[in-house]
Amino acid sequence: MRRWNGWGDDTIDKALPAAARAFLESRLGRGDTPIDASLDSACAQVPASRLNAEPGWDVSAEARLRHAHGQSFADWAAVRHGDVGPFPDAVATPATHADTRAVLDRARALGAVVIPYGGGTSVVGHLKVIDDGRPVVCVDMSHNARLLDLNPRDRIARIGAGAPGPVLEAQLRAHGFVLGHYPQSFDYSTLGGWIVTRSAGQQSRRYGRIEDLLHGARLACAGSDFDVGGQVASSAGPDLRQLVLGSEGRLGIVTEADMHVCPVADHEAFHTLFFADWDAALAAARSITHAGVAVSMLRVSNAEETDTQLRIAGHESAIAWLRSYLGWRRLGDRPCMMMLGVTGDRALARRIRRDALGIARAAGGVHIGTRMGAIWAKNRFAGAYLRNSLWDAGFAVDTMETAVPWSRTTAAMSAMQQAAHAALNRYDERALAFAHLSHVYAAGSSLYMTVIWRRGGDYATDIERWRSLKAAVSQAIVGAGATISHQHGVGVDHAPYLAPEKSETGIDLIRAALAELDPDGMMNPHKLC
Amino acid sequence: MRRWNGWGDDTIDKALPAAARAFLESRLGRGDTPIDASLDSACAQVPASRLNAEPGWDVSAEARLRHAHGQSFADWAAVRHGDVGPFPDAVATPATHADTRAVLDRARALGAVVIPYGGGTSVVGHLKVIDDGRPVVCVDMSHNARLLDLNPRDRIARIGAGAPGPVLEAQLRAHGFVLGHYPQSFDYSTLGGWIVTRSAGQQSRRYGRIEDLLHGARLACAGSDFDVGGQVASSAGPDLRQLVLGSEGRLGIVTEADMHVCPVADHEAFHTLFFADWDAALAAARSITHAGVAVSMLRVSNAEETDTQLRIAGHESAIAWLRSYLGWRRLGDRPCMMMLGVTGDRALARRIRRDALGIARAAGGVHIGTRMGAIWAKNRFAGAYLRNSLWDAGFAVDTMETAVPWSRTTAAMSAMQQAAHAALNRYDERALAFAHLSHVYAAGSSLYMTVIWRRGGDYATDIERWRSLKAAVSQAIVGAGATISHQHGVGVDHAPYLAPEKSETGIDLIRAALAELDPDGMMNPHKLC
Repeated sequence: MRRWNGWGDDTIDKALPAAARAFLESRLGRGDTPIDASLDSACAQVPASRLNAEPGWDVSAEARLRHAHGQSFADWAAVRHGDVGPFPDAVATPATHADTRAVLDRARALGAVVIPYGGGTSVVGHLKVIDDGRPVVCVDMSHNARLLDLNPRDRIARIGAGAPGPVLEAQLRAHGFVLGHYPQSFDYSTLGGWIVTRSAGQQSRRYGRIEDLLHGARLACAGSDFDVGGQVASSAGPDLRQLVLGSEGRLGIVTEADMHVCPVADHEAFHTLFFADWDAALAAARSITHAGVAVSMLRVSNAEETDTQLRIAGHESAIAWLRSYLGWRRLGDRPCMMMLGVTGDRALARRIRRDALGIARAAGGVHIGTRMGAIWAKNRFAGAYLRNSLWDAGFAVDTMETAVPWSRTTAAMSAMQQAAHAALNRYDERALAFAHLSHVYAAGSSLYMTVIWRRGGDYATDIERWRSLKAAVSQAIVGAGATISHQHGVGVDHAPYLAPEKSETGIDLIRAALAELDPDGMMNPHKLC
Repeated sequence: MRRWNGWGDDTIDKALPAAARAFLESRLGRGDTPIDASLDSACAQVPASRLNAEPGWDVSAEARLRHAHGQSFADWAAVRHGDVGPFPDAVATPATHADTRAVLDRARALGAVVIPYGGGTSVVGHLKVIDDGRPVVCVDMSHNARLLDLNPRDRIARIGAGAPGPVLEAQLRAHGFVLGHYPQSFDYSTLGGWIVTRSAGQQSRRYGRIEDLLHGARLACAGSDFDVGGQVASSAGPDLRQLVLGSEGRLGIVTEADMHVCPVADHEAFHTLFFADWDAALAAARSITHAGVAVSMLRVSNAEETDTQLRIAGHESAIAWLRSYLGWRRLGDRPCMMMLGVTGDRALARRIRRDALGIARAAGGVHIGTRMGAIWAKNRFAGAYLRNSLWDAGFAVDTMETAVPWSRTTAAMSAMQQAAHAALNRYDERALAFAHLSHVYAAGSSLYMTVIWRRGGDYATDIERWRSLKAAVSQAIVGAGATISHQHGVGVDHAPYLAPEKSETGIDLIRAALAELDPDGMMNPHKLC
């Protein structure tokens, strides 16, 4: 069953190797590990619902608790320390567009606000209940998950927006197609959630970001339905799909979407290379991108991340071999790892491999084959489980991410890492902060930083340190002129930093559009802007 | 000098070959050729300006006449028959963002409306003055045409939005870069015009549509400035660039834009193939697209267009040879022409050529080399001059275009052609209607239909027949569920057909956004929606 207070299925554990724990304790000190709040005690905190149980609405304490949060650090600290709430008053589970329409109409009649819920994986507070006096209906879309239509000639599939990754891909694969959208949250996050948060999958270089994959969509809005897009290409006015993408539930609930799909690839491999330093690896990444080599993925870890990943993975003998091999190849002691995804039919894959490895080697990369990549691919969605075991071992973890032009990648990365260290140093704490780029574009790349620090023993301490960390890194991102989010969205955590990116005029435009379709502000209010 | 009443430079004529004229007369009958209105007589129709000449504003009759129209059929018929107007009251020519800001502030203070003018090439009425009682300032952006910045590492160039194609490309080529945006109007149309009408260049398959090329932009709006975009990639809320793209001057005037550029390609060739029929050519086009072969351009002419193009080109001996060659190759008498653009460095070009020709030949294509393609490339922007000589020979011409999924291409094309024939048959006139697809996407392609019919001798007749034709074809497009425009925009001619594409809710959203930045409706009013 789904964990109510952590990541994933409660039958799955990803243990933290003893050496990894020792490494973290040597760097950060030993963290506190108070006992987590229990499900029973958390349920006991859920007050009586302000709504009667409409047909199909669940007003039980457990359902309302389970739908009261996502996976942001603030959510996580609240559920682990037992400081949860506010809660939605009811959870509805519509299975079709018409069901969703009916739920919204009923909610509106009741003066309730609505929070759309996909897989509950938001890391920036999209699902947070903010009490403004109105009752709250959480609309769980997971029952609306079917492949509704597939046109193989046009390569367009109509899919229920509540479909989580595995359900969506299984239905498409039965017909020989894939969407190809693989965020780390793939096991739980849903099509509708990907759309309204502008998600980017790990192989966006081949398949595109979710905005490239969206052909058209149907929304249930506060007072009406809205069919958007559906044209092959159009110069007829603004592209309104691009208002829906990133709308975070505030324009309406996406109930069905027409998505561009493509045939299952015959061949896939992930190649690993090491470079002597970050500058060399970054230059190689830029060269591969600018040469237009059709890799499906391109990731570069900085030296801190390369080191930490190898230690946390716990493959000590493999690491020893690797270090001695890389040392022998004169790569020094701060190597940076690159991973290249090669996906396609056999001939195309051969060509991509040759082109990409050719450029990477010319830039100083040492190719060590596909074995590490195969392990990465096998565990690509399981890494999120480490958060559970890190917490249990006394460590908090969060990620902050942005995208920057090539000319400013290194400066922005340094600023983010320094901000993280400075924020925790203020509490006499240390941070382990490391970063990678994992999505490349002609103009630049994403930057994804992970920060690990030790737990403080109580909710107030953990949340204060995190707030300080989050604010410092967000200010570093904004100060670098970079986006407040490349792939996680805005929610509540990034909302204070949206105006510098969009401008005040831009915020006014967004608000005008939201007010047009939702004059009473009943759709996921207090999120985005 | 620029022709005031037709296409292009008045020192350039593209003669209609005698055989082409004879062919058209045999199919359509001989058209009337009354004498065109003179520049003097047209200037004499321009009434006194309602505005005083502000510094830098031109209120002369000739400037106001030259800025009173674009290149739509309605514009063309009006200027040729001397039935012009209404006119802008003044023409301003700001050279910078600050100049544009000042023009808008002054216009606002005067209670005037503003019509932005790039190269005057709109074919759907974007530049038409619609008299609602307020004075009108036409803002000619042609003095704002400089390359302002170029970052070769990020491959981003900041360019004055008034730059027409040749000026823009020359400045970039001096640094080894191109934008790669080549609409047929390239000689005159401007960056800002491309952005606000969502233009597609002939080699969009390589370089992208203008929306793919736009990194960020600066706008002067009615009451404020607006900086939009500028992020490498972002999940932080709606992408507001996509409201600017297609805004047709109504959100504000784009003054500067940051564009994705790429290095000049070493090699370029355009290969021609012939197929026995449309279905075979269409299937080949779809296969090449779905195989992901990186051709820079893919065009397929239907049988009527292939025949007409060859006749109008006037290369009789070449055609005879081609027909006999194609006949010998058993292609029959309704061959369809495909043209494939191959652009890149030498190794990439060789690969693209091999892949694309391999698929095309397997689908029955007969490759005749690159000579026809070289002629096409040399004349790629000169074809527009034929409109002048067709008119002088007694023939009217217009184009209608859309985009459709692969599964509906042929049905939509037939419906458009039949609508054109039926509309003119109602006047006992015949139409020559032929089509091609010239932009391909995973889900489908553009469809571009040209219609030639004979002139009726006076303005009322010409405009009535055209209105009937335009309405019939537009209804056929809407009836096919297709977009009212793939590459020309909305203006006034397509405005009645926008709601079926965007939905009433979508139109409300667009209007809410426009009203937010321009509550008085002073920016290009009565256009778009």
